[in-house]
This record gives sequence, C-alpha cells and structure tokens, in this order.
Amino acid sequence: MAEERTHADVAVLGCGNMGSTLARRWADAGKSVVVWNRSAARAEALRGPNIEVAQSAQAAIETADVAVAVLATYDTVRQVLDSVHKLDGKTFVNLTTGVQDEVDSISELCDAKGGSYLDGAIFVYPHQIGRPESTLLYAGPEEVWARHRNLLQMLGGNTRYISNRLDLVNVLDTGVIGSFYHSAMTAFVETAAYVLGTGISPDTLAQATKPVVDMISESVDEALEAVRSSNYDTDQATMSNIATAMRHFGDAIERSGYTNRVLKAATSHANDAEAAGMGSKSYHAMIDLLMRPRPQQGASAGHSGGLPQ
Amino acid sequence: MAEERTHADVAVLGCGNMGSTLARRWADAGKSVVVWNRSAARAEALRGPNIEVAQSAQAAIETADVAVAVLATYDTVRQVLDSVHKLDGKTFVNLTTGVQDEVDSISELCDAKGGSYLDGAIFVYPHQIGRPESTLLYAGPEEVWARHRNLLQMLGGNTRYISNRLDLVNVLDTGVIGSFYHSAMTAFVETAAYVLGTGISPDTLAQATKPVVDMISESVDEALEAVRSSNYDTDQATMSNIATAMRHFGDAIERSGYTNRVLKAATSHANDAEAAGMGSKSYHAMIDLLMRPRPQQGASAGHSGGLPQ
Repeated sequence: MAEERTHADVAVLGCGNMGSTLARRWADAGKSVVVWNRSAARAEALRGPNIEVAQSAQAAIETADVAVAVLATYDTVRQVLDSVHKLDGKTFVNLTTGVQDEVDSISELCDAKGGSYLDGAIFVYPHQIGRPESTLLYAGPEEVWARHRNLLQMLGGNTRYISNRLDLVNVLDTGVIGSFYHSAMTAFVETAAYVLGTGISPDTLAQATKPVVDMISESVDEALEAVRSSNYDTDQATMSNIATAMRHFGDAIERSGYTNRVLKAATSHANDAEAAGMGSKSYHAMIDLLMRPRPQQGASAGHSGGLPQ
Repeated sequence: MAEERTHADVAVLGCGNMGSTLARRWADAGKSVVVWNRSAARAEALRGPNIEVAQSAQAAIETADVAVAVLATYDTVRQVLDSVHKLDGKTFVNLTTGVQDEVDSISELCDAKGGSYLDGAIFVYPHQIGRPESTLLYAGPEEVWARHRNLLQMLGGNTRYISNRLDLVNVLDTGVIGSFYHSAMTAFVETAAYVLGTGISPDTLAQATKPVVDMISESVDEALEAVRSSNYDTDQATMSNIATAMRHFGDAIERSGYTNRVLKAATSHANDAEAAGMGSKSYHAMIDLLMRPRPQQGASAGHSGGLPQ
C-alpha cells in the first residue's frame, strides 16, 4: 500500500469494461483517479496520466474522497466492503447492477463503517459514457448527491437524481433494462428467427424494424400519458382487437414451425385483460390491471427483505 | 350504381380509420378517388373534392384502374372479391392485415377474376401516412408494382417493393408488428406495472425508458450484423451472463409480487440456448438456434396451405 501517497478525486473499484471506461473518462476530464481490481492486471492496464493503481480496496478508498464500485454483483460489493476497515466519512457510490432487495444490506454496511451511500445505475453501454444524451440515475440522501453531482455528471449529460429511496434505482434498472430491454430483444430474436427463416433478408428485416422501434417509442409515451390521466378509453384499436390480432399472428407463426413463446406470454396478458372486462379499453389499461400486485412470495419479499440466495 | 359515371385513379375498399386516411391522402394529392364501405355512412363521410362514393365494391372497381383494399380481415377481402363479377385487367392491392398462409387463396381469386394482385402492409399509424419516413412494403409481380409505384409511393416516403413472393409481406407484418411490436409493448406494460407500482413516477420511468429504446434500436442492428456475418463471438456480455442476469431480475420482480410472465418466456429461450452449448456466445446466437424450424403443425401449415379456420 506504500505507493498510494497522493490524494485522488475518485476511486474506481472494479476494472471490467464499464469500470475501466469510467476511470478513463474521469482521467480524461482532468480528475485524479485511483483504481483497484481483484485481479491486478486489469487495473495495471489503466495506469497512466491521472490514473494510479491501488493494491487493495481499502487503499483506494483511503486515497480518494469518493469510491465508485462497478463490480460483478452485489455479493461482490459486500465482500469488498467487508474487506474494508472503515469508510470514515467517505462516500461509497454503488453502480453495480442489482435488484431492489439487495440494497438495504449494502447501505447498512456503509453506515456501519462510517460512510455515506449512493446507489446508481448506468443506462448506456460503455462506449456511450460521457455523451450529452447518456443516462445515469442516482438515489440516496439528497445532500450526499449534492456533494458529488459535479463529478458524477461527467459520466453522461442525462445524469439525474431520482429519489432519497435507495431501492428505486435498482427497481428502474430491473424493470427497464432487466425486464423491458431483455424481453424486447428476445422478442426481436423470435421475430428474426421466423422472418429470416422464411426467406427474408437481414436488410429487409432491418428496414421493416426501424419504423416499428419508433412506434414502440411513441406507444411508450402514449401508455404513460394514459397512466397519468387514468384514461384508458380509445378510438383506435381496443384491447379485444389487439388480443384477437395477437392470437391470429401467434397461430400463423406456430403453423410455420417457428417458436412464438414470448408472443404467447404477451398474448396471455391480453387474454387476461379481456377476461377482466377491459376488452373495449385501450391496450394500456393492462398496466392498471398488472399494477395490482399479487401477495408477495416468501419471507424475503419486498423492499425491506434480505438478500436472495 | 348509376352515380359513378366518371373515371377514378384509385378505388379504396374499406373506409375504417386507415382506409379513410389513404383516400384523403390521395385526394389531397390531386388523385381522383372512389370509395366503398360495407356500411355506407363511413364512405359518405369522405365525399368531397376528388372523392366519390360507390354503392358496391364492383362499382368502385369498375370506375378505377386500381383497387386498394383496407378491410378488417382476409376473410372480409375474400367476401368482397366473391361479390365482384370480374376484375378485368384491374389491379387489386391488398393492404389488409393478414398472415402468410392467407395470401394464396386471395391471389388465386384475383387471378380467376382476371385481375393482377399486389400484397402490401402498412408499417405506420394512420396519422403518419404521407410522411417522408413512413414505411409501406409491397410484394407481387414486379411489372405490376412498376405500373402502380407512383400512386403507392404517395402514402409514405419509405415505400418499398420487397419480393415477387406474395407471402413475404405478411411474414414481415406478422413478425415485426404482430410479434415484435406487440411483445415489446407488453414487455413494457409488465415493466410499467412493476416500476410504477413500486412508487416511481411516470416521468422518471419515461426518462429511463428513452435511452433503452435507443439501445434496442442499436442491438437490433448488431443482431442483424451478427446474422449477416454468422459471427456470434462476443467480448461483451455472453449468453450465460445475460441468462444469469435475466433469472436474477425475474426473481426480484416475482418476490415483489408483480408479474414477470413475458420476461420468464424470454428467459426460457436464454436457458435453452445455454443448454444448447451457446453459453459463451453472444445473445444473438439465439437467432441461429431458433431459425431451425420445428416440424410444421397440421396439414394446413406453411406457405402453400389453406386458410386458418
């Protein structure tokens, strides 16, 4: 630990693809950075102007005012925090991808070591870090956010503080990337298999998909406007119209011998909404139906629960 | 039928929301239009400069060089064609939404009545008709397309002829709108129910969703590039990384008491791809796996089959 004698503006814990990108971005912007990684080679690869390498997480944290963790999982974050003697007034910013009920135990651990905690999520790929339109979201005590916002905003022009409820960033990450992004991409994979398998070229599929991604963007806005106004009336296609069409399309894909598993799951929601009496409403009424949560499963459910095993 | 004495450039059969929009668009662009609708009131509502009303589909078709059908289903198209004595060299353009194995019998019916046939699909909402970026796709004999392309291109700047295989427009419509669009929107509904139900505002959800729709657009391009090059290697997240994350996210949503049905169907594909030995490949390798069609189901399967019942 002898080599980190200087002060650094920020410590980056974890030098995977994303962690390395953040360290380089801050260094390029003139900040002094100290990096640490469990396997030292990835940290050493970053050494250069404005970037020093620490031999331990504790050493990195002691050197800097704020430590930013970009690790594999929250379990790794907990192991790293366990290895740290004290945070001593430092802020620990956790950009590791995790879920709602993983946040509490990490934030308590920070508390116990005398540090402040911010939870964050990165909504872009590494190569988009630093762009004006790139989105990163943070939650935590507002005064802690205020202390570090200038540093954190260097990672993307659309960096926002959303709540003092620490769990909400992970809810958004789980919902929008974990669920929506992965489900939508898998829906595209299903579509691509059927369309390309039937003899259409990738270029033609690309041409047909572009406007439909724009339709998704527009429909997302319409859906959220319907939620804001609690108005699920429509003079366009009704829930029943759409459910009927989805069954018809799904059957056609099945007759061709291709999989329609994701579409079938989606159709089952439409069928349920019809059965619940929403047939003449807009498709967005389904949000209202599905927002009524079912009883939580097991003792570890919900915001205040423990870590998943 | 006495009133349609004049010649029209185009007949529009079906005056629902989309059919009415097409008729108005052509009339505004200076084309003479004749419209017909089963219930006359919707057709009468369109009467005006450049738009006449026909009392039967036969009368509309006799008046115009080309008839464009925008009806509820292919069954309706068949009923309308059955009511027509002859097409007599006219072109019948079918913009009605349908699936792959519905096309043949309609095209044969046109043939039998002495007409030419084009099959088309509209990839935008009615309010986007006529815009430079709006996408409409056509298939059929290339010389028939060439005869009518100027008229058809007035409906959208991104109007394209894709194939002489008549069924391929419906394959794209079924795949990209029927399956991808509806699955992705239902995935968003699932996400919105979880995120909004947990206490996040519609505005914050909108902010987080925008960049993710851009990610979907970018990932679609990457997926199709992987297919073109048959290269499913990755130095980013592997199939196993993503499958693990999807299971983790899905479990978290379930513990919170919200539905994860679409995500679960998507995850089952990722699990299958892992089990098929694709764990170290990119997520796009799943297209390759799912493009191998299963045996077709039932006698009416495939392109040359009959109409679904």
